Amino acid sequence: MLENFDPIIPEEYQGCKYLVLGNLVPTIQKSVIERLKNRPKLIVMDTMNFWMEMMMPQLKETLKLVDVLSINDEEARQLSEEYSLVKAAKKIMGMGPKFVIIKKGEHGALLFHQNEVFFAPNLPLEDVFDPTGSGDTFAGGFIGYLAATDDISFDNMKSDLIHGSALASFAVEKFGTERMIGLTAEEVLEQIQQFGDLVKFDIHLENTL
Amino acid sequence: MLENFDPIIPEEYQGCKYLVLGNLVPTIQKSVIERLKNRPKLIVMDTMNFWMEMMMPQLKETLKLVDVLSINDEEARQLSEEYSLVKAAKKIMGMGPKFVIIKKGEHGALLFHQNEVFFAPNLPLEDVFDPTGSGDTFAGGFIGYLAATDDISFDNMKSDLIHGSALASFAVEKFGTERMIGLTAEEVLEQIQQFGDLVKFDIHLENTL
Repeated sequence: MLENFDPIIPEEYQGCKYLVLGNLVPTIQKSVIERLKNRPKLIVMDTMNFWMEMMMPQLKETLKLVDVLSINDEEARQLSEEYSLVKAAKKIMGMGPKFVIIKKGEHGALLFHQNEVFFAPNLPLEDVFDPTGSGDTFAGGFIGYLAATDDISFDNMKSDLIHGSALASFAVEKFGTERMIGLTAEEVLEQIQQFGDLVKFDIHLENTL
Repeated sequence: MLENFDPIIPEEYQGCKYLVLGNLVPTIQKSVIERLKNRPKLIVMDTMNFWMEMMMPQLKETLKLVDVLSINDEEARQLSEEYSLVKAAKKIMGMGPKFVIIKKGEHGALLFHQNEVFFAPNLPLEDVFDPTGSGDTFAGGFIGYLAATDDISFDNMKSDLIHGSALASFAVEKFGTERMIGLTAEEVLEQIQQFGDLVKFDIHLENTL
């Protein structure tokens, strides 16, 4: 039984600065936090609709302890009982997390913090070969860049999100981890540049309004 | 019968630089182009799935004469018989238009030109009161800014798209044209600034890859 899984934290994991709680039983996620002797600098949590249906009270207890919640748009609506994602994010931030990431699948992801919002688009791709694992790749790219820069500001988190999206856009090109294995830093850089180009526009308003 | 509608171009409309063909019978759209003594600098065309089902051959004839096609994602797939919007846009550009705008509703809009792509997001809104007319407001904002700047480059068209999106984001706030009537240039400017802020991120990669 998954519910009886009793995670032991290896001694060398004590003192970790960044903790990502994968999508698992909320009570187990909570026990992991409690078994760390020092609170990490940042705790990111993933969850899903199944836990909202089965263990909402326990899920809400765990939510109180985390800094970043990462869920998809439907889950955000279910958790908050709000249709507008702006309202949903505000309500969820009232439950504990200071940052909320709402993933919209092929339509990109939103990052909310206080009264601010950032949107990370997805690159329009000619072919999507296999989307399996793109969510985990996104999460890995996000926390990897965050840990490497050791900066938990909202502005830096925007870049983290773009890094996660860039890596995920590679993951879908081939089966499994195939595309990721030979990936070079140059390729990642080029992809991130493409995200920048995708949304870049100039504002010249003097003569027109 | 709509099919028998025979549009007369008023003399003062002759010589127009920018022509937007609203969503109507493709043969009528074509006859409007043919009745202009001088070809406009830019012809924008809107259409919909209904005409694809009823009059695809005529629609394709009209398509050959226009510069910009503006449709939604499902229509782009139907017209091109491609699921990937990147492939769809390429195929449609092969049919005549040099620019293709693909509207994704609340998820924003893509602008394609040759091998380039630009993405205009939608502002995440707390409340959407009435979406009626937001598509037409978008089109009006787009062509209005384009005509005001008199610049049909891809780069300027990006800004046009953002202007259209900004105006549409106001249109949904109230019924009908209510919100648009008192709208000031300052409000529009602020909204455009918000579009910029929504997608702005910094790339600091030196130490991380």
